Amino acid sequence: MDTKRKAIGIDFGGTTIKSAVVEDGRLIQHGDVIETTEHHGAPALIEEILGVIAALRITHPEVAALGVGLPGFIDSVNGIVHELTNVPGWDEVPLRRILQERTGLPTIIENDAKAMAYGEFKYGAAKGCRFVLCITLGTGVGGALVLDGRLYRGAQLAAGELGHASIDYRGTPGLYKNPGDLEMFVGNHRIAARASQLYKVAGRNVPVEECTPYDLEKAARNGDPVAKQMWENVGLELGCALVNMIWLLNPDAIVIGGGVAKAGDLLFGPIQRTIRERTLPLFNQNLRVVPAALGNEAGIIGNATLALEAAEVK
Amino acid sequence: MDTKRKAIGIDFGGTTIKSAVVEDGRLIQHGDVIETTEHHGAPALIEEILGVIAALRITHPEVAALGVGLPGFIDSVNGIVHELTNVPGWDEVPLRRILQERTGLPTIIENDAKAMAYGEFKYGAAKGCRFVLCITLGTGVGGALVLDGRLYRGAQLAAGELGHASIDYRGTPGLYKNPGDLEMFVGNHRIAARASQLYKVAGRNVPVEECTPYDLEKAARNGDPVAKQMWENVGLELGCALVNMIWLLNPDAIVIGGGVAKAGDLLFGPIQRTIRERTLPLFNQNLRVVPAALGNEAGIIGNATLALEAAEVK
Repeated sequence: MDTKRKAIGIDFGGTTIKSAVVEDGRLIQHGDVIETTEHHGAPALIEEILGVIAALRITHPEVAALGVGLPGFIDSVNGIVHELTNVPGWDEVPLRRILQERTGLPTIIENDAKAMAYGEFKYGAAKGCRFVLCITLGTGVGGALVLDGRLYRGAQLAAGELGHASIDYRGTPGLYKNPGDLEMFVGNHRIAARASQLYKVAGRNVPVEECTPYDLEKAARNGDPVAKQMWENVGLELGCALVNMIWLLNPDAIVIGGGVAKAGDLLFGPIQRTIRERTLPLFNQNLRVVPAALGNEAGIIGNATLALEAAEVK
Repeated sequence: MDTKRKAIGIDFGGTTIKSAVVEDGRLIQHGDVIETTEHHGAPALIEEILGVIAALRITHPEVAALGVGLPGFIDSVNGIVHELTNVPGWDEVPLRRILQERTGLPTIIENDAKAMAYGEFKYGAAKGCRFVLCITLGTGVGGALVLDGRLYRGAQLAAGELGHASIDYRGTPGLYKNPGDLEMFVGNHRIAARASQLYKVAGRNVPVEECTPYDLEKAARNGDPVAKQMWENVGLELGCALVNMIWLLNPDAIVIGGGVAKAGDLLFGPIQRTIRERTLPLFNQNLRVVPAALGNEAGIIGNATLALEAAEVK
């Protein structure tokens, strides 16, 4: 009999819901993928999820816990989904109680960014570190913190909104009206718009749709000076946001995920330089600044791990 | 026989060293004040401190622990003073071991800002809160964090350097070369220099020495438009720095201490307004933004409390 405990981790996204049985930070069996938009409203989606869980338990009846990460405002203490970003019909759903009653498994629910951060902390890019900032770069810029070895949630469980902290208090107001918020600099749409503008200044017409992070990476690697400049800018801006968090929290790891992070050294070079120039050696010498390592599996692993740990405490 | 435990708290400052016997967050007997500059080097000062401790124990032999807060880089885990700000001769002093051996008391040493924050959290302006940012406004701008009910130190025990986080990534470099750091906006000297400049623009000659926080408060209360504008500026800039920390950490209390904080509503009005305008209700509705309540006693109380709690854990 094996002594390692297994849990089911579920990563609920705006387009798909992915799941797997997780053992010691590894996915040992994937569940069927659910298309989020094919099932309208919470009850229908919950039934689909229960079906996938039941199927996974046929081959792995020894599963000991269930963890679900969702994109939105999640009350992980009381197990309630207050609302989901981009998924209608999820207002004040007591998801933990429902899943727990129907499956009989000890269950946790968590914000998806927090679960991903926990996965990277336990088994990914920040393994062995205890003070970890995670930042995810996409259309939105999100994040989560692991402090002193524990997932950090804050007074209203809303901590980690790195994208809405500002690097320029007189800048352009962002989504929530905070002038100069980081998302206004390095959100995907903003990078594309700014790159297209930079091309225009350089006398070239490159439409916004052709300025994705992928396009800009390719162009920069081919020596395109505008694309190279754009990565320098993004690295500086992102680096400055991280510098503020470093002075405040003195982390030992910063994990950067999402599409933009795939640019590798084009992005990490200027970030590292900015951090070195704007903090003291005490803060930056033993600081690991790394890309996320678990990719799309981070959420599933994090949720399963949080669920197992919560079940063990009880 | 009383069941409440007493400890000696010591607040080691650049000009004086103050101490007291503390019981349940109250100072029940003060020790003699030591003038820091009258005793050169660590050994002489340590002997003076030991003398004060011995005197306090004559009237309070039941004292159960000793806590010392110092201004500088303190390794509270290993009990070593790496160096002190503005006090020469304190390089790599194993202060905790020395005091423990000579007094026989369980001893802790801590950075002074962290000890003050802990005092305000346990018995002062943030009593009852669990996620607390403390900021101290003086020539330097310092701070400390209590997160999830525990003093937060970070990977190198250096967390809480709020004054060196930036609100303008293209601003004027501060003490540690970070452009636009908060200290460059709201440190006492900077406030004075900027106010004097504002007066000049308004056609008045008010020298820097007459632009202390105290002068500016008096002038603003007498209707002086330049002084009033200056407080609006300082409140906005400080507010913007706090906004960044609020998005990141979702605290339930922010405690503001130091000379500048004495300006009351002149400062707290624009700070509150800035926080309301630049964060979401979820983050600001239940957030307490308050002046420090324990004044000069915060450090003594915090050190004594940390010492008692550490002694109890053992």
